[in-house]
Order: sequence, then C-alpha cells, then structure tokens
Amino acid sequence: MKGEVLRGAILDAAAKLFIERGTGGTSMQDIAESLGLSRTAVYYYFKNKDAILRALTEEILTSARELANAAVSRQDRDPAEALRELVTDYANLILSRPAEFRVADRNESDLTQRQRASMHTARRSVLADFSGIIERGIQLGHFRMADPHVAAFGLIGMCNWTAWWFKPSGRLGQQEVAEAIADMAIHALRRDESRRARVPDVKESLRLLREDLAYLEKLVVPDEDASAGQRK
Amino acid sequence: MKGEVLRGAILDAAAKLFIERGTGGTSMQDIAESLGLSRTAVYYYFKNKDAILRALTEEILTSARELANAAVSRQDRDPAEALRELVTDYANLILSRPAEFRVADRNESDLTQRQRASMHTARRSVLADFSGIIERGIQLGHFRMADPHVAAFGLIGMCNWTAWWFKPSGRLGQQEVAEAIADMAIHALRRDESRRARVPDVKESLRLLREDLAYLEKLVVPDEDASAGQRK
Repeated sequence: MKGEVLRGAILDAAAKLFIERGTGGTSMQDIAESLGLSRTAVYYYFKNKDAILRALTEEILTSARELANAAVSRQDRDPAEALRELVTDYANLILSRPAEFRVADRNESDLTQRQRASMHTARRSVLADFSGIIERGIQLGHFRMADPHVAAFGLIGMCNWTAWWFKPSGRLGQQEVAEAIADMAIHALRRDESRRARVPDVKESLRLLREDLAYLEKLVVPDEDASAGQRK
Repeated sequence: MKGEVLRGAILDAAAKLFIERGTGGTSMQDIAESLGLSRTAVYYYFKNKDAILRALTEEILTSARELANAAVSRQDRDPAEALRELVTDYANLILSRPAEFRVADRNESDLTQRQRASMHTARRSVLADFSGIIERGIQLGHFRMADPHVAAFGLIGMCNWTAWWFKPSGRLGQQEVAEAIADMAIHALRRDESRRARVPDVKESLRLLREDLAYLEKLVVPDEDASAGQRK
C-alpha cells in the first residue's frame, strides 16, 4: 500500500516537471530530488523516463475508456440529464488528473504505436458519447439546432482546458468547477422552455416560424405596423 | 512579397512538424524537405530552430494583444453583442493559427524569460476581457448567475480546443465554426427570459427564424438529415 502511494507521488511529481521543463529537460535525478528521494528509490518503481511517461498516459486512457463504457447506461435517459452527467464525469476526470492529461497530450510523439492507437480510440469514444447525446437531444426537440460535432468538441474543450487553469488550492473546488461547466453545457444546448414542443411537431414548428416572421416584419417595417395598430 | 510568403510557409511547415514529432525530433533539414526546399533556403530566413519557435510564438502573441486592446471599444455595448463579437474574434484567431497556438503552448519551457512574461500578460488580458463582459452582463441582468471566472475559462477553452480538432479541409469552414462556438457561448450565459424581453433586433430575429426553419426541416425531411450525417 505504501508502495502504491509512493508510485503515485512519483508520477505526479514527474508530470509537473515534464510540463514545466519538458521531458527532455527533466532527469530521473530531478524527479527524485523534487520528492526528497534518492534516485535508487525512483528506479525501483520505474526503469526510466519513458516508463514514467507511459504509466502517466495509461492512467488517463483507462479512465477515459471506463467513462465511454458507461455511455450505454445513458441511452434511455433524458438527454439533458444524460449530458449533465457526462459533462460532470468527464470534467472530473480531467480536473483530478490535469498534469497527466497535459503530459499525455504534449508527448504524443514519444508514445509507442500501440499507445497512440489506444489514445485515438479513447478520444473517438468520448467524442461519439458526447455527439450521440447531443444528436438525440436535438431529435427529441429538447436541444436547439446545433451542429452535434462542433457542439461536442466545444463541450469537450471546456472540460479539457481545465487542465491548463484549474488549481486544486484555488477558490473553487473540483466538484464545484465540474458542476459550473455542466451548467454551461446544458444552457448552451437546451431550447428555451417557451419554445420547446413536447413532441416533435410540424404544426408547432410552423406556428413558431410564423410568430418569428411576424416579429421580424414588425422590426423591418415599423411604419406599416404602426398604422395597422391604429386601425385596431 | 514572395519572401514574406515563403517565410510564412516555413513557419507553417515547422509548426506542423513540431506538433507531430516534437521540437527535439525535428531538424532544419526536415523542415526544408517538407517544403521541397534546400536547407540553405530555410537558413536564409531563420538562423536556427529556436528562431523559428520564437517567431511562431510572437505571431500568436501579437494577435492576442491586438484582440485584448480592442476590448475598450466593447465597454459600452450590449453585453451579449460584445460577447458574441469577442468569442467570434478569439475563435477566429485560434482557428486561423491552430498549429502555432499548440506549438506556443507546448514549448513554453523553451521560451525566453521575456517571451514567457509576454505570453502570460497576453493570457491575462484575454481572460480579463472575457470575464469583464460576463460580469457586466450578469450585473445588467442579461446573463444568468454564473462564476465569471469559470465561465470565462469555459468559453476560452471552447475556442482554444479548436486548435486540436479543427481541419480547414473539413465539412465546416473557419467562420462557420467560430459562429457556432459564439452561439454556444451566448446560450451558455444568457438568461432564458431575456430572449423575448430584449431590445427589438433584426439580426436576432433572423437568427431565431433560421433556427426554427432548420428545426422544421429536420422534422419534415429526416432522411435527408441522416444521409448528411453519414457524409461526416
């Protein structure tokens, strides 16, 4: 158990140094020193820097795969609820391992062929998970018209970018930030309550269209409208 | 003029190679070969890889500073309008130089002290610009209650992340993606009630009209839409 804790501490310290100085500018000695350990202690857990880099990437990948696998359980749920859960979970995944996420992203060129393929698969699963829920929400009339692909990347970007700015010691905690981001995601896509048809309905859509047209007409031809008003 | 074009082509090619192989894995020879140039031609414009890296970062920084300076002109404007413009402009900045943005971010540890300070200043200005508009929108009751800091980082993240996924040769053009992201940003923050209570606005009415039309189209011609999805 103590071994697991120490291994985790080495990974965290290495991730931070890799970001600050690059992998090339970080030695096993640097990693050991930053933890007040001997180099031998670090070598007991990892045979070299590449092994550390691989372990860091593997951790993020495993979590991302688990997240994508949970998608099946979301397929019958209300799209807004499902999206809130997905964004919260995904944001929490990044927020809990920001340094690891950035290291995995930054050093893609140092990964093995197999690792890189595995990384692309994980990314594709997450993207499919997001855009699937968004598409379903649009079809059910719960979400506004948006390009599901761009929308998915937009939400994923909000989550991923936390790895660049979130500080665990900051004013807001991890869960608070994850929930704030999920709130933004839902608002970004939900149709206004007043405009939402309960069932996808052509007649209702035509009514909204006529309403918007009338409103636009009123703006564009104000004089016409004023005289019409006088006749009432 | 031809010199300027060639210099730009060298920067673009270098940025792409830096991302694929890392700065360490890219030589001046590689950069020259990827453009079908002689090494001497590349050395005519840049004395070494560091000079290329610095030029790439400088370009992004200059654009970011210009963007932040334009903020003053937005201070008296409607917050939703100002936010739409800021997000569109900032997204376009990233979308037009995705490789440069990633290189600048990735190789921060290779920058000079002065460049790094300049990068932090640019980042802070952009953040202040975003959170300033958001705060004003909340105070005026146009935006919903949200943490301005987290909201600002969320929107910046949506824009920044385009550097990782946007392909100029893809289905959607740069301006379309920028506008789709601006749409998400506005929806993410606007209060629902404000949609009807706003000052009469032709542009906004047209946008609503387009949204309703697109929705109706989706209901009436669902097969058309499914095949469009497959083309992705």
